Amino acid sequence: MLPRILRPSVKEDPVNRNPVAIFDSGLGGLSVVRQIRHILPAEDIVYFGDTARVPYGSKSRPTVVTFALELARFLLQFEPKLMVAACNTASALAMDELTAELPLPVVGVVEPGARAAVELADGGAVCVLGTEATIESGAYPRAIRALDARVEVISRACPLLVPLVEEGRRSDDAIVRAVIEDYLAPLRQQPIRVVVLGCTHYPLLRQAIVNCLGCHVYVVDSGRETSLMVERVLSRAGCLSRSSAAGSIRCCVSDNPARFCRIGSSFLNEEITHVELIGPERYVSSAVAEAEFETG
Amino acid sequence: MLPRILRPSVKEDPVNRNPVAIFDSGLGGLSVVRQIRHILPAEDIVYFGDTARVPYGSKSRPTVVTFALELARFLLQFEPKLMVAACNTASALAMDELTAELPLPVVGVVEPGARAAVELADGGAVCVLGTEATIESGAYPRAIRALDARVEVISRACPLLVPLVEEGRRSDDAIVRAVIEDYLAPLRQQPIRVVVLGCTHYPLLRQAIVNCLGCHVYVVDSGRETSLMVERVLSRAGCLSRSSAAGSIRCCVSDNPARFCRIGSSFLNEEITHVELIGPERYVSSAVAEAEFETG
Repeated sequence: MLPRILRPSVKEDPVNRNPVAIFDSGLGGLSVVRQIRHILPAEDIVYFGDTARVPYGSKSRPTVVTFALELARFLLQFEPKLMVAACNTASALAMDELTAELPLPVVGVVEPGARAAVELADGGAVCVLGTEATIESGAYPRAIRALDARVEVISRACPLLVPLVEEGRRSDDAIVRAVIEDYLAPLRQQPIRVVVLGCTHYPLLRQAIVNCLGCHVYVVDSGRETSLMVERVLSRAGCLSRSSAAGSIRCCVSDNPARFCRIGSSFLNEEITHVELIGPERYVSSAVAEAEFETG
Repeated sequence: MLPRILRPSVKEDPVNRNPVAIFDSGLGGLSVVRQIRHILPAEDIVYFGDTARVPYGSKSRPTVVTFALELARFLLQFEPKLMVAACNTASALAMDELTAELPLPVVGVVEPGARAAVELADGGAVCVLGTEATIESGAYPRAIRALDARVEVISRACPLLVPLVEEGRRSDDAIVRAVIEDYLAPLRQQPIRVVVLGCTHYPLLRQAIVNCLGCHVYVVDSGRETSLMVERVLSRAGCLSRSSAAGSIRCCVSDNPARFCRIGSSFLNEEITHVELIGPERYVSSAVAEAEFETG
């Protein structure tokens, strides 16, 4: 299912230089930006990373919905032609609220990743890797079974992989190999044909994941599939940039721009030299209802 | 140096049942609460864990200062007799602002940990373990050298230890042992006499840290030292609870009370059955100034 068509006001612009807006819980979404820039190099991009409240993967649905809506509302000021929820956790938990509220097409990373997994499964099982919140939400299995109810889906939360990547460790690191073995070795007994990298950080550990599961397994990078979906949506609506110049990137963060530049460059595969720090008065609302919680 | 004396208005209460207020970036501060309850079982405690924005260890000083002040201001409504910044990162980055603003004594975890380290060093080196932000701040070396300028301090950021503990891994886990070996093995060449556990999560990995560095090394748990400091401050001010009944605990969080109960119980060593979820309108201010950041 494709997102709703673009706004007529946007379509009237013959050379559509309105930017593509992309938000993420932090810097991981830059791996999605990298793919979009590879496929659509003429598009201007505006990015908002919520580095003050990162990560989202251990947080509750109401909080992730609130945060995702705040980021998206902030980005509307740039009059984007399309919004990308690059964060898997936000895509898994907040897509209904985002598409209901936003007056433009919204592309999340779950639906494109699920679609590619179903195409490649060919009777085998699909293994989805993600954060605690993404896996608990069941969003990937739901999206996969909506496309093909016969596909078996095995899910595995991998909470350590994000901090491992942010510490600069990659596939050749012994700790990375040991953690991936710990998470995935039990899955080698299953008839897995496709593994979905359901978190923006995981493509940076792709080789270690392949080494553990075996190279007969297809790897779906949800970020790459999302960039292909963005191209398809913009192309059908006649809204692709027609500029011959390279598109720009504007990066905004809610905290720690120095760390964003230092670590983010390896996600984007380009040097990041300029980042805007956005204060909470420009994006924080006060919308979460209070409640009491009791166990047992 | 002890915190400022308690407010006269509090001292007038002959049996002082005003609570001790404790805040933390998340649930780690419950390991400090555990120590306080062990030493001061009659004290009522009110705790606020910022689980919506946890962790603080990868965030900037201005943001950690803003967040810490927000948590402390929220807790003032309970009319505490003393405030504990149980989060090492908040103690390392925001103690000046907390003590300047709050109208009551504030005890952080850095100063008590540093004091114990100096007492035990006896001519040897002190090794401080903490989050990225705590180590980058240099707060522990500053506090140690203010007490004894001759003490050599070696610092090591250990960003993976918090997610390892939150995943439920403990000292007997092979990944934990490998990560600690990776961080600390190079330090075995140094003349280390004391290791400071400069993060609320690290006491849960105490045995693995001792196994790596050797049992000739003294271990300082900043949380335990802080509870002794709390006792000293309250005792000198005549403000210890004189109740013979066990003190109560009131837990507030900014997100995900279910996860707080599930994981927090092993930090507190008591079952947690009731937690209040606090909405952002009750603690978020909009005080961080905006700025632009450029590298190079």
